[in-house]
Amino acid sequence: MSKAPLIALLTDFGMVDPYAGILKAVISKISPGTPIVDLTHEIPPGEIMRAAVYLWQSRAYFPEGTIFACVVDPGVGSARRGIILVSSGQTFIGPDNGLFTFVMTPSDKAWEINNQEYLLPQQSVTFQGRDVFAPVAAHTALGVEPKSIGRELSQLVHLDSPKLEFTPEGHMAGETLFADRFGNVVTSLGKFVKYAPQRYRFEPWIPFQSSQADLTLFSPDDFVLQLASGEKLLWVNTFSDLDKGKCGFLVGSSGLIEIVSYAARAEQLLGLALHEPLILKRSGK
Amino acid sequence: MSKAPLIALLTDFGMVDPYAGILKAVISKISPGTPIVDLTHEIPPGEIMRAAVYLWQSRAYFPEGTIFACVVDPGVGSARRGIILVSSGQTFIGPDNGLFTFVMTPSDKAWEINNQEYLLPQQSVTFQGRDVFAPVAAHTALGVEPKSIGRELSQLVHLDSPKLEFTPEGHMAGETLFADRFGNVVTSLGKFVKYAPQRYRFEPWIPFQSSQADLTLFSPDDFVLQLASGEKLLWVNTFSDLDKGKCGFLVGSSGLIEIVSYAARAEQLLGLALHEPLILKRSGK
Amino acid sequence: MSKAPLIALLTDFGMVDPYAGILKAVISKISPGTPIVDLTHEIPPGEIMRAAVYLWQSRAYFPEGTIFACVVDPGVGSARRGIILVSSGQTFIGPDNGLFTFVMTPSDKAWEINNQEYLLPQQSVTFQGRDVFAPVAAHTALGVEPKSIGRELSQLVHLDSPKLEFTPEGHMAGETLFADRFGNVVTSLGKFVKYAPQRYRFEPWIPFQSSQADLTLFSPDDFVLQLASGEKLLWVNTFSDLDKGKCGFLVGSSGLIEIVSYAARAEQLLGLALHEPLILKRSGK
Repeated sequence: MSKAPLIALLTDFGMVDPYAGILKAVISKISPGTPIVDLTHEIPPGEIMRAAVYLWQSRAYFPEGTIFACVVDPGVGSARRGIILVSSGQTFIGPDNGLFTFVMTPSDKAWEINNQEYLLPQQSVTFQGRDVFAPVAAHTALGVEPKSIGRELSQLVHLDSPKLEFTPEGHMAGETLFADRFGNVVTSLGKFVKYAPQRYRFEPWIPFQSSQADLTLFSPDDFVLQLASGEKLLWVNTFSDLDKGKCGFLVGSSGLIEIVSYAARAEQLLGLALHEPLILKRSGK
Repeated sequence: MSKAPLIALLTDFGMVDPYAGILKAVISKISPGTPIVDLTHEIPPGEIMRAAVYLWQSRAYFPEGTIFACVVDPGVGSARRGIILVSSGQTFIGPDNGLFTFVMTPSDKAWEINNQEYLLPQQSVTFQGRDVFAPVAAHTALGVEPKSIGRELSQLVHLDSPKLEFTPEGHMAGETLFADRFGNVVTSLGKFVKYAPQRYRFEPWIPFQSSQADLTLFSPDDFVLQLASGEKLLWVNTFSDLDKGKCGFLVGSSGLIEIVSYAARAEQLLGLALHEPLILKRSGK
Repeated sequence: MSKAPLIALLTDFGMVDPYAGILKAVISKISPGTPIVDLTHEIPPGEIMRAAVYLWQSRAYFPEGTIFACVVDPGVGSARRGIILVSSGQTFIGPDNGLFTFVMTPSDKAWEINNQEYLLPQQSVTFQGRDVFAPVAAHTALGVEPKSIGRELSQLVHLDSPKLEFTPEGHMAGETLFADRFGNVVTSLGKFVKYAPQRYRFEPWIPFQSSQADLTLFSPDDFVLQLASGEKLLWVNTFSDLDKGKCGFLVGSSGLIEIVSYAARAEQLLGLALHEPLILKRSGK
């Protein structure tokens, strides 16, 4: 079994222009033979929150030692720093703009990239993915230590947390995050980890304080999901349980509540936008 | 020359969300170093027929031993089975919903995936590509036999065949299947295999019964293609033989008749939808 | 460090149909283990100029020995030739339609592909990427010499150069080339190579004649960029220097002048089309 690390790429470069291909060229030139996996290059331009959630959803499925080179970087060329973050045996490289908010923990170490030796000799202002992040990822794959590439940092930029809290009435309040390819609307409500058939334990995916006692047990079929419009959705086990044109909610593949339909786009059927408030409540209430 | 198998991926996951990247992560974690080829991730959501034709068009160009992990699966989480099919030295893994209709033959063997040992320990209801099909593909690449992963099946789901038959008048009747990137409309008429300049032998790509004697010879320039509108198209050798704004037909790269234009979309010029009836007839008739 | 060459793919096949995947299948079958990098498959159908500029922007970032298989080929199946070009230690394979205009130099050698031994045995008229260019790339990766694949050529097809010249008044005249994913408009003006902070040397990227003496020094902040509308844009250091809704210009990552905005599409804000005339002039004039 190969022990060579894998480099995963996440950018908002799209697939039309040669930018994503050039990242792979730079990596292949410095570190030939290192496997490269495209996580996605189609983050909508500048949507750091979406990229940060995707990293959270994906990272545990990658091997230990994976190096994530991440370039969603609307502030490229400004004073924002480039960083290397080591977290749970994986390495994250990219701009210090909050991209790594949902993968990092307080005990993780991070470094600011500033050793010119590991960058391309000519550096543009506008394409630091090519000139900085790809070469640093490739040198990291070759075994260069982060401390050789920069100075240790004590504080990184964090995104504001999406809404996830208890209401005074004891309901769980959250918000819509984004719609995926199929029109499923991923929400901030979760995560819910299955521990028995139709029984889920609540393990908040973002910082969460509560003094309530009954957090650790959860059975989704006792609940309804109330939209900002007042409409209430029922829990379903899977897409095909829904009648044509109807929407429901389920625990998605990352443990977050998703609003879904069957062979149709829930996002469109319900006219849902981003950051719409949601309430998850017991059906009896 | 490497003997390690290659894993080819075909899904309707799109390139925006991290789903396709996560499949590759799961495979790389279980079977590091196995080459992965993206056949496509842009099957329109749930279009099983299109995916099935793409597999038929593609599989012969892949090496012997290729493992196809295929996830176009609108019924995910329902009672539909997950299967492993071995056909002509290649392995096909995915839902039993007809995806493999055009690659399988009556003598192929298939198994239902049910050995939890080869799946991810936590299985979601909605992302079995990640939890079931990718790990089974990776374990297959490591040499695990299908019979270790599940029980043998005698009957698989088949899609209804596209139309391909002789009319009482001796014409060949078919239908439009889909339009490709260039607006070329792929049809069910074929396949036609070249055996001499402008001479093609008819070798039906789907089950076909006929008592007619003259099936084995075919010369496309003796024929016209009649659309549902009554319009008749002439055979051309290649795109650039057509005048601007004109459409014709040719034998496409898979041996199926395609309706084409030059530097324009035949699909739009002719206003063709899916499943439109077509008649291929001798020009004299 | 692996010495095996890498194959880079550039096509207009898109990511929906299986065509790009089939190229990779053919290469993997002939030359298993050769790494394949997707440069892009999303060239707008038939846009040879755009593909040619992308190759110019990308090739220097790829390793020595890289084999580029390039298929933007509206004339497929016509009399146009298939070629192998060797230029600065890299190999370019594709149709002789101008695709390689901006990478080739007068001293480069080229060959016409005509040895059937290195092509697929069955060749379609419409998919020579699969039947000709991919197998030739794979055999080249295995070490087959171009002279074994075809006869040497003395003359290749060139695209007309984009506009890049001095006006009688001593300004630099150019044109818009295309907009990228972010709405940045790449122009023909350049390239400008940084040799000191905010100091750029003009090194024309396409043939350029001038008797003027002051070509080798350039400081972009002394200049304005005048659009066809008469509007004048100021130079900025990076995107985030621009106020919301405003546009400016900068030296892009390939050394060409780009018209940009911040978190918005300059192309749309200014209503820029392709081939719009531009004048780069000293701010004082």
